[in-house]
Amino acid sequence: MFAVQSSAQIPDGVKPAPTNIQVNNCPCIFPDLRVFFKVTAPTATKVQLDLGKLYDMQKDDKGVWSVTTDPQVPGFHYYSLVIDGFKVSDPASESFYGTGRMSSAIDVPEAGADFYLLKDVPHGDVRSKNYFSKVTGTWRNINVYTPPGYDKDTNKSYPVLYIQHGGGEDERGWAVQGKTNVILDNLIAEGKAVPMIVVIPNGNVSKPGAAAAGGYNDEAMALFKEEMATNIIPFIEKNYRVKAGVANRAISGLSMGGGQAFYTGLRNTDMFSHVGVFSTGLFGGINRQPGAAAFDPEVAIPGILTNPKSFNSKLKVFYISVGEQDPRIEPTKKLIETFKSKGLNVEFASFPGGHEWQVWRKSLNDFAPKLFK
Amino acid sequence: MFAVQSSAQIPDGVKPAPTNIQVNNCPCIFPDLRVFFKVTAPTATKVQLDLGKLYDMQKDDKGVWSVTTDPQVPGFHYYSLVIDGFKVSDPASESFYGTGRMSSAIDVPEAGADFYLLKDVPHGDVRSKNYFSKVTGTWRNINVYTPPGYDKDTNKSYPVLYIQHGGGEDERGWAVQGKTNVILDNLIAEGKAVPMIVVIPNGNVSKPGAAAAGGYNDEAMALFKEEMATNIIPFIEKNYRVKAGVANRAISGLSMGGGQAFYTGLRNTDMFSHVGVFSTGLFGGINRQPGAAAFDPEVAIPGILTNPKSFNSKLKVFYISVGEQDPRIEPTKKLIETFKSKGLNVEFASFPGGHEWQVWRKSLNDFAPKLFK
Repeated sequence: MFAVQSSAQIPDGVKPAPTNIQVNNCPCIFPDLRVFFKVTAPTATKVQLDLGKLYDMQKDDKGVWSVTTDPQVPGFHYYSLVIDGFKVSDPASESFYGTGRMSSAIDVPEAGADFYLLKDVPHGDVRSKNYFSKVTGTWRNINVYTPPGYDKDTNKSYPVLYIQHGGGEDERGWAVQGKTNVILDNLIAEGKAVPMIVVIPNGNVSKPGAAAAGGYNDEAMALFKEEMATNIIPFIEKNYRVKAGVANRAISGLSMGGGQAFYTGLRNTDMFSHVGVFSTGLFGGINRQPGAAAFDPEVAIPGILTNPKSFNSKLKVFYISVGEQDPRIEPTKKLIETFKSKGLNVEFASFPGGHEWQVWRKSLNDFAPKLFK
Repeated sequence: MFAVQSSAQIPDGVKPAPTNIQVNNCPCIFPDLRVFFKVTAPTATKVQLDLGKLYDMQKDDKGVWSVTTDPQVPGFHYYSLVIDGFKVSDPASESFYGTGRMSSAIDVPEAGADFYLLKDVPHGDVRSKNYFSKVTGTWRNINVYTPPGYDKDTNKSYPVLYIQHGGGEDERGWAVQGKTNVILDNLIAEGKAVPMIVVIPNGNVSKPGAAAAGGYNDEAMALFKEEMATNIIPFIEKNYRVKAGVANRAISGLSMGGGQAFYTGLRNTDMFSHVGVFSTGLFGGINRQPGAAAFDPEVAIPGILTNPKSFNSKLKVFYISVGEQDPRIEPTKKLIETFKSKGLNVEFASFPGGHEWQVWRKSLNDFAPKLFK
């Protein structure tokens, strides 16, 4: 009754994407992972699909525009429709906060990968909470994963992983796109990860009245650290049954959030003993900022090259990951070599894929089992 | 850095709507509640705003389309942009699941109404959970509000209000648009409502493989009741600290969900002792279904007119509300008269506004204090 599409024209052998609004049969996926998109827009002059690559869609005599894409990499891809030059989300799909707006996305299933699929195992809760930030001067929303059993064993306390989204995203990223709860539920059920709380904050921190912050500059990083230290950690430790102390605190994040985890984690080894950095552009491989100096680890983290033993003794886990088709991989690998040549303990992992959520889901699935052991 | 608008053209004296994506200064609201919308779409031929009323937008020499609307009723209004005839959501605003898709909305503040605004009072959690439904054969998401103190007083159990969304919405409706947590937090802090759990399910229940159900027909109502009785209530009572028994169970809903509350609540007074029906089209005032018979309360709920004493003794609260500009109000008032003439105890309330969330927020704010006392 609310379908936004005509039912015409669906090719044989396709399956609806899991990211569709339930009543819509498209976007739909061929066995070889080509995707068929369609849009009913009889009075538009030009309709395109922007899925990283820009596709012109073809109009039939009923005003239905359609296109079949190249085979897609499995995983979660933001996309837009472009209606006569104006970029919008697709009414046929769910929208997700990413790229600075509510953006369409398609989640292309990966054969054989079930670590991020809902299973009949004990499930934790994802809790939405509000707290007042003295840094931003505003109420802010935060998501908190509590593991299975949290409500039953009320004398038990838990270690905490703080995990950050990327640029143009917010606290919905790891809760929705990232499937943090599903990944943790599955890891805990298999005995691979210890039960932990995962805190999913909004990492876009700006001073009262200022425009939204972000990026890799020192001021943005300092504001993020202040928000963590003076608002988020105290709020979590007051409201949830948290194991106290640095040994029970981890920080990680993706892209911009990977930069935040790197700076905040490594500059504050009295606060965090486990650091996970996924796909950050901090080390290079993208234009971080026009005219920005090349990344110098010793400037970013004093002592990291000259006193690695101090970091080795304080950090139980220091982990870096990146997608194998992400331009950030080469400078990341180079930095790992530098770190290792200086004797710094660092674990490195790469996963097939670009700068996308499937890599970050796999990073979390790989990183979480290493924590608090 | 991710703003989707140019900064040109903003009129003086306006304020950004609270539903904007944070970096965007429009849509923006004049003191007299006219709203200014703008869209940067230089190559589009025609751009309109659909806010119930359809407005043609005007293009300037930079390709920015804009319009100032008539003064708006305070509250939450779904809207769309229409780009060369194709209806889409506005990248400048948040999207909400409503009208069967992720739809833009603007929340126009209401002077003097603060019952639905975040305050510095103890806050409960909104928890997202997954359960497997034996009725639909699928995993389903459900939102659960637990009141302030739930995690601290771990020997305390709570009564439960089950609350349903409208057609074209899902379990996100009352959690996001409805601000259930904020309304309950404020009521509980003022001592107006008893602390309770509020369960916010997805009321679109269909058999395995069938298209999405809904509507007011007997089959849809029977499926909803089965989902409540065999999946939702047992899941909640197993996973949360719930006070047992019919005296501690209430059901309510809006529009289609009001119909579900009416049927499921009044046909099952062994399950529910408090029933709230907000703005339902069940009683008439809209075209429920082509050729549908006029609503007959005695057919819908056997005994409601012929044995009202039975309902009076079993129901602690039977509450009906509707918006004063909603076409559903006349048949609703007529039914209330019929009920009262038969001696059935029913409370009626109306609020300024049409078929919109501000009326439903006010209905919850009015209904919740009556429960479990």
